[in-house]
Amino acid sequence: MRIDINCDMGESFGAYKLGLDEEVIKYVTSANIACGYHAGDPLVMEQTVSLAKDHGVAVGAHPGFPDMIGFGRRNLNATLSEIKGYVTYQIGALQAFAKAQGVTVEHVKPHGALYLMAVENEKISEAIVEAIASVDKNLIFVALAGAKGEKMTQIGKKIGLRVAYEAFPDRAYTPEGTLVSRRQAGAVIKDPDTVAQRALTMAKEGKVVAIDGSEIPFRPETLCVHGDTPGAVNLVRKIRDTLTNEGVEVTSLSTLYRVTQKVNQ
Amino acid sequence: MRIDINCDMGESFGAYKLGLDEEVIKYVTSANIACGYHAGDPLVMEQTVSLAKDHGVAVGAHPGFPDMIGFGRRNLNATLSEIKGYVTYQIGALQAFAKAQGVTVEHVKPHGALYLMAVENEKISEAIVEAIASVDKNLIFVALAGAKGEKMTQIGKKIGLRVAYEAFPDRAYTPEGTLVSRRQAGAVIKDPDTVAQRALTMAKEGKVVAIDGSEIPFRPETLCVHGDTPGAVNLVRKIRDTLTNEGVEVTSLSTLYRVTQKVNQ
Amino acid sequence: MRIDINCDMGESFGAYKLGLDEEVIKYVTSANIACGYHAGDPLVMEQTVSLAKDHGVAVGAHPGFPDMIGFGRRNLNATLSEIKGYVTYQIGALQAFAKAQGVTVEHVKPHGALYLMAVENEKISEAIVEAIASVDKNLIFVALAGAKGEKMTQIGKKIGLRVAYEAFPDRAYTPEGTLVSRRQAGAVIKDPDTVAQRALTMAKEGKVVAIDGSEIPFRPETLCVHGDTPGAVNLVRKIRDTLTNEGVEVTSLSTLYRVTQKVNQ
Amino acid sequence: MRIDINCDMGESFGAYKLGLDEEVIKYVTSANIACGYHAGDPLVMEQTVSLAKDHGVAVGAHPGFPDMIGFGRRNLNATLSEIKGYVTYQIGALQAFAKAQGVTVEHVKPHGALYLMAVENEKISEAIVEAIASVDKNLIFVALAGAKGEKMTQIGKKIGLRVAYEAFPDRAYTPEGTLVSRRQAGAVIKDPDTVAQRALTMAKEGKVVAIDGSEIPFRPETLCVHGDTPGAVNLVRKIRDTLTNEGVEVTSLSTLYRVTQKVNQ
Repeated sequence: MRIDINCDMGESFGAYKLGLDEEVIKYVTSANIACGYHAGDPLVMEQTVSLAKDHGVAVGAHPGFPDMIGFGRRNLNATLSEIKGYVTYQIGALQAFAKAQGVTVEHVKPHGALYLMAVENEKISEAIVEAIASVDKNLIFVALAGAKGEKMTQIGKKIGLRVAYEAFPDRAYTPEGTLVSRRQAGAVIKDPDTVAQRALTMAKEGKVVAIDGSEIPFRPETLCVHGDTPGAVNLVRKIRDTLTNEGVEVTSLSTLYRVTQKVNQ
Repeated sequence: MRIDINCDMGESFGAYKLGLDEEVIKYVTSANIACGYHAGDPLVMEQTVSLAKDHGVAVGAHPGFPDMIGFGRRNLNATLSEIKGYVTYQIGALQAFAKAQGVTVEHVKPHGALYLMAVENEKISEAIVEAIASVDKNLIFVALAGAKGEKMTQIGKKIGLRVAYEAFPDRAYTPEGTLVSRRQAGAVIKDPDTVAQRALTMAKEGKVVAIDGSEIPFRPETLCVHGDTPGAVNLVRKIRDTLTNEGVEVTSLSTLYRVTQKVNQ
Repeated sequence: MRIDINCDMGESFGAYKLGLDEEVIKYVTSANIACGYHAGDPLVMEQTVSLAKDHGVAVGAHPGFPDMIGFGRRNLNATLSEIKGYVTYQIGALQAFAKAQGVTVEHVKPHGALYLMAVENEKISEAIVEAIASVDKNLIFVALAGAKGEKMTQIGKKIGLRVAYEAFPDRAYTPEGTLVSRRQAGAVIKDPDTVAQRALTMAKEGKVVAIDGSEIPFRPETLCVHGDTPGAVNLVRKIRDTLTNEGVEVTSLSTLYRVTQKVNQ
Repeated sequence: MRIDINCDMGESFGAYKLGLDEEVIKYVTSANIACGYHAGDPLVMEQTVSLAKDHGVAVGAHPGFPDMIGFGRRNLNATLSEIKGYVTYQIGALQAFAKAQGVTVEHVKPHGALYLMAVENEKISEAIVEAIASVDKNLIFVALAGAKGEKMTQIGKKIGLRVAYEAFPDRAYTPEGTLVSRRQAGAVIKDPDTVAQRALTMAKEGKVVAIDGSEIPFRPETLCVHGDTPGAVNLVRKIRDTLTNEGVEVTSLSTLYRVTQKVNQ
């Protein structure tokens, strides 16, 4: 039993500091690094790659819309060519910093509005995976696990990418296996024990308990966590410890894929 | 006898069109492509790489300061770490578009204020070549030929990069072998025949006639030309034709280096 | 019989030149000046205000989304507070340049995606007119004439602004009085004589002939024209000459309102 | 005896929070509000104007270079026209938010590199005060007190602006009355009691004790303080309390000028 823990990082920008990267890095196995479009800048990218390398954490690109004021969280009606271009550009920029430090960009997870638009719109998912595959076919595409993310996932696989199903242990799921909207009560789960337990159930039993109590089969390969506040970091540590103590190996996606491949052969 | 002709390209941005890339591409052997910091955007980068590929023109990165309003022409007191980061970032971004089209970024020529600051300041030259070498030791560093550019050149060679001496056939030179300031009369030479003849003398005889009539030994490996106006494009064609008719092979820097290496062995 | 002719101006940016402002300014009465968010920059704003002043053309703000790469043409899912803030900011910035030259910003016309989103979404229209009214109740709000723009218009009037109905002589209209989509054949009318005639019919007879031949009552107070190409400028001259020759006074919105007010009293 | 206390505010940007504005606002009389070029955004500007209004704190513009990554702290070799344009633009943008809330922008203090370049370069000071005066002759220009700032001050007065001499109670001064470089030991004074005492001596006795123990006559009209950390805010409170307890009235620049004017008449 193995699972990856991913976290958005490198979101600081110039004089602006965001996220407790130095803390949360200790407990995760994949860093999704902002690439200067919605957050991050060259110095921050360089430092975050270095931080990830020092902790043996996998480096991934976290491309977003060119919208620094909106932190990439606002839908932007860009053309498919533009989206493909934005993703290509940002992956390349991060690869240069990785190359300079002797590490490899291993995965790509779209950020914010770009991620959510890809979930809803197959054409956008296609533009994203085309960009990824055009740069490096070995990159792992992180996509939403569950019913809602299935199309996005299939689009990634079709083009030949390895796809990692992502789940959110601190978010409630509908019985259909999609995320409960943030506008609804109970959408975000805050109790650390509950969240850690959900993470364990996801990783170990391959299921999640939906908001109505029903169980959904569901086997994510990576769990998304946050490192914005001391409380969030504690929650991540709790998740990590719980998984480890219960015999789940927490490991990066590429290791996970290597091992799986070996087993399958 | 061989020489490269380089031209800044891909300087359009969104709705803004700049440069007659489709015309001038026919007569040059190296394209210095803007990387989205002082000019260019992902779509333009993608199209310019494609254009270069179609014409068998070498793709190079043309990194500049993050100053779109100022077109990268204004000195910016960035730290060395910032400069190194900016150059790394921009090379990587362009590499992704090159990779996607099966071509390789072959050279790097800093843009505008960054180039001129590097000529004046060894530390800045160091930051730039460190960035280049950290991403790819095979990249050719384009640096100012002549006395003034010598330090910049040595710094590139010291770190292990191949350096290409660049000259400006349409610019007057001082007897010391540096460019006459644009503020001085006669700094820019406009007569096409004169410019073409100067290019030929540079390429074939390894010398340039300075503004006072004296001859300076001077063997550039690449000639910088411009493609902003129909007149400029005609001038480039004239240069190219003159060189070719007079037995100078116009070829990209990497070919030039390959051939030279063979000869030296 | 009086009508205003408005044109987007000041869309150049740094080294990037866009539009033949110096030409088209001779034939229009209102300049919608870009304010540095989707196009324009402080120097261009200053020069465009000066150009308008020299030609006795009314200065107006043309606020757009903060999206220079997309030229403000892409829908952006900004919050209403953000939109209100963007419009306020841009009007203020232009007012400073106007103040410095002793002229007054007289009207506001939202740009591109912001304009089109306002047509579709009452909340966005409200955010825009609240911003305008909060800065200066005397500003004239330029809104789409016809059925489709009616809500937008009413929202402007409700808050106490003077609203100017805008029509597009070079665009085909549906029998319902809305613009034919650009994706449809015949949406854009290119023959100068036809366009000038349409402008005249709009101004003089208070009607427009729809794409199916039916006549729609329709009395715009301002006609939108373009100055991007020499052909476009000629078209504007043609419109202006036709109106003038046929006894329609071409005058800015504020004059038009002053006169109307006097008549009504 | 009266003095103003000013603090940079509104430096947050999108998702990025900077400064404890809600805390420090309680102890200052003038807020220098960032205007979206080096920091700040329309929403933040609107909120900061509102915060200042609620606390009866004077609203001022804090224009900087268009350099968000560098927080306006890096020298930029902009032309004088560009600088004038940048300052005009930013003052206007802030005025719109002030107008919308029924308050007036009362002062302008250039930010970071722009301020320091103005201290060194008379032409830049001129460009700045020309911009200020062109927008509103009643704006108060905040300039460096002491020998080094004298030229800047005179340039402001010459164009007809009221100028406020600014001093830094937490910075050491040379015997010549200029700031000790930050690179030197003892340049920044951290002990709250010492800083508060220096503020008091500046305000009450019209002098400052230089780093060598000598006394310099020196009568600032405004003291610059910082609100970045809880410690900084405590220091501001200490300064304010000390001044008040010792009979110095802490009041905004415009009040100070009104009172002075009355006295002089």
